[in-house]
Amino acid sequence: MTDVAVAGGGLIGLAVAWRAARRGLSVTVADDAPGSGASAAAAGMLAPVAEVGYREEPLLRLGLASLERWPDFAAELAAASGRPVELRTAGTLVVGLGEDDVGELDALHAFQRELGLAARRLTPREARRREPALGTRVRGGLLVEGDHSVDGRAVHAALLAACAAAGVGLVRERVAGVVVDGGRAAGLRLASGGVVAAGATVLALGAHSGALPGVPPLPVRPVKGQVLRLAGAGGLLAGTVRALVRGRPVYLVPYGGDRLVVGATVEDRGFDARVTAGAVHDLLHDAVEVVPEVEELELTETLARFRPGTPDNAPLLGPSSLPGLVLATGHHRNGVLLTPVTAEATADLLATGALPQPAAPFTADRFGGPECS
Amino acid sequence: MTDVAVAGGGLIGLAVAWRAARRGLSVTVADDAPGSGASAAAAGMLAPVAEVGYREEPLLRLGLASLERWPDFAAELAAASGRPVELRTAGTLVVGLGEDDVGELDALHAFQRELGLAARRLTPREARRREPALGTRVRGGLLVEGDHSVDGRAVHAALLAACAAAGVGLVRERVAGVVVDGGRAAGLRLASGGVVAAGATVLALGAHSGALPGVPPLPVRPVKGQVLRLAGAGGLLAGTVRALVRGRPVYLVPYGGDRLVVGATVEDRGFDARVTAGAVHDLLHDAVEVVPEVEELELTETLARFRPGTPDNAPLLGPSSLPGLVLATGHHRNGVLLTPVTAEATADLLATGALPQPAAPFTADRFGGPECS
Repeated sequence: MTDVAVAGGGLIGLAVAWRAARRGLSVTVADDAPGSGASAAAAGMLAPVAEVGYREEPLLRLGLASLERWPDFAAELAAASGRPVELRTAGTLVVGLGEDDVGELDALHAFQRELGLAARRLTPREARRREPALGTRVRGGLLVEGDHSVDGRAVHAALLAACAAAGVGLVRERVAGVVVDGGRAAGLRLASGGVVAAGATVLALGAHSGALPGVPPLPVRPVKGQVLRLAGAGGLLAGTVRALVRGRPVYLVPYGGDRLVVGATVEDRGFDARVTAGAVHDLLHDAVEVVPEVEELELTETLARFRPGTPDNAPLLGPSSLPGLVLATGHHRNGVLLTPVTAEATADLLATGALPQPAAPFTADRFGGPECS
Repeated sequence: MTDVAVAGGGLIGLAVAWRAARRGLSVTVADDAPGSGASAAAAGMLAPVAEVGYREEPLLRLGLASLERWPDFAAELAAASGRPVELRTAGTLVVGLGEDDVGELDALHAFQRELGLAARRLTPREARRREPALGTRVRGGLLVEGDHSVDGRAVHAALLAACAAAGVGLVRERVAGVVVDGGRAAGLRLASGGVVAAGATVLALGAHSGALPGVPPLPVRPVKGQVLRLAGAGGLLAGTVRALVRGRPVYLVPYGGDRLVVGATVEDRGFDARVTAGAVHDLLHDAVEVVPEVEELELTETLARFRPGTPDNAPLLGPSSLPGLVLATGHHRNGVLLTPVTAEATADLLATGALPQPAAPFTADRFGGPECS
């Protein structure tokens, strides 16, 4: 019997487990392949301002709260794990290529100013002064100095080490369901038939959170993303470059010395795990238009993973309609950004019984739970 | 002491070994990773007519001689190995997209007729009747009914089995050099320091043939090729489609039920083994222009390998300037096509001491050996 059983050993599950263990709780995480889901594909952008969406102000506030926590979170994680967790604090440059794309930049900038967010419009020349590798078709830029990035895989590796150091148990088995006993979640059932009995159960299965036996219906759907990883990009970019290429978004995120992530498609097609020729083509095409030297880089990896999408693109946090089951899922495109605030709020809830403020608006009952439908 | 030591267990090395063993010779092949070189990337086109090059008539004749041997070679190999070796005999369609590309088709057709080769010009409508998946930008076609294809990896797997059944020894070690004793090749030196002592030594190391200690200078250079493999293409194409897309060649070769090979770049940049973003982009772009549905296929593999290039694009066969060392290398873009004729001629030479006619013009001394330079 453990205090907390966590279903899912991705970034969210491990971060929750680590923080809960630091609060003195005994924790066991179950996952047959920790970090092989959306965490493996995440580009690691910490960019709530550059990515702010219309009618998504609550999510913006949560993102800003988490971004604020990232420096301390990274420092503590590095200390606890003995592994480097480096924030890239060079900011994010958003660029537009076509006439309409630059119009979108202006609209985004106006919206950011309306919300009191810091961002600066750049001429093509100013944009190229910041990122000399930009192609000649770039027609304008928008610099968000406060939006950073982190290497998601490095964070995951550090979390594994920090969890081990904090005494978190890791069961490398597939989670087959939530054990429900007397109307309460009582732990996890494993594919082997074994059980992790627990006082509280945390659901952090990402896109798979909506279909776990024992879990009440949740509005989580898989949103497929395809991304590329490239090598040989040392010194190519100062920071993250996001671009609109004739209405199609693409991002280039440098990491780990000479690496680059290029992403990402956003596809509503269920759990179709194929890397497709069309997606790889479009990503390469757009990346090369934005930064022509990408053509010379080594393509080291292509992959497709599934974000946990929700109706309002914001996560599902805190208690669920099943007593004893705590949600830490539905992070959609913001899993890395929201890791610190999710871990802290969930650990608070597990330790004190109360979900703290920044997370409070994101309980699942905002959509009308099964008990009220 | 074995009669024959073969350096290299790719398609050429194994086919030579198999044929020599069938002639009653004892044979040992040395290769640390058989089939992992150019053989792994080959699309398996048997297309001497569609690919005929200006001033390459001798190579054309060798290719036609080998194409003629393919049906029997495949049948014997299937029988000897107990594995399927299926020729795809649907022919090859060459198409052009731009105005200039169609002009190239006309020039190629004129050259083919001049050489007495069978090929038929098709209108765009006729081309699409044969291959309904062709995109609307295809402006003309050229059908070569006699040019076929085969799955090179399936052939390699069959050759491994046939060699084992014929008693060919396989030493899974890297070849470090040719043993030279009294001015004669006397076998192979292995990376471990061991030796395969042999009466005759065959050099079938592909692009690495030019740089093996003990081997006299050979005009073989690596010609990099990048190719893609895709899945989900069942029923998409009847046969091989080669295309010129605004001057840039691309081919699509169906194989194995639902697979497709798309290739290939031709790059003179030494042993640079990187798969590059630019090459993958260009191959996908051109393939999609020719057959738009390629966009929906799964991209299962990207790889870069090295063809053994020679000054006249034709192979180096038969005796070398080092007595006892026999060449079976330099096949450039035609390794799969030329496998049967190379194996037969080399086995003949090993068994009888004479190189038979179709291979005779392709000895290395046509370039002026080191003894005459």
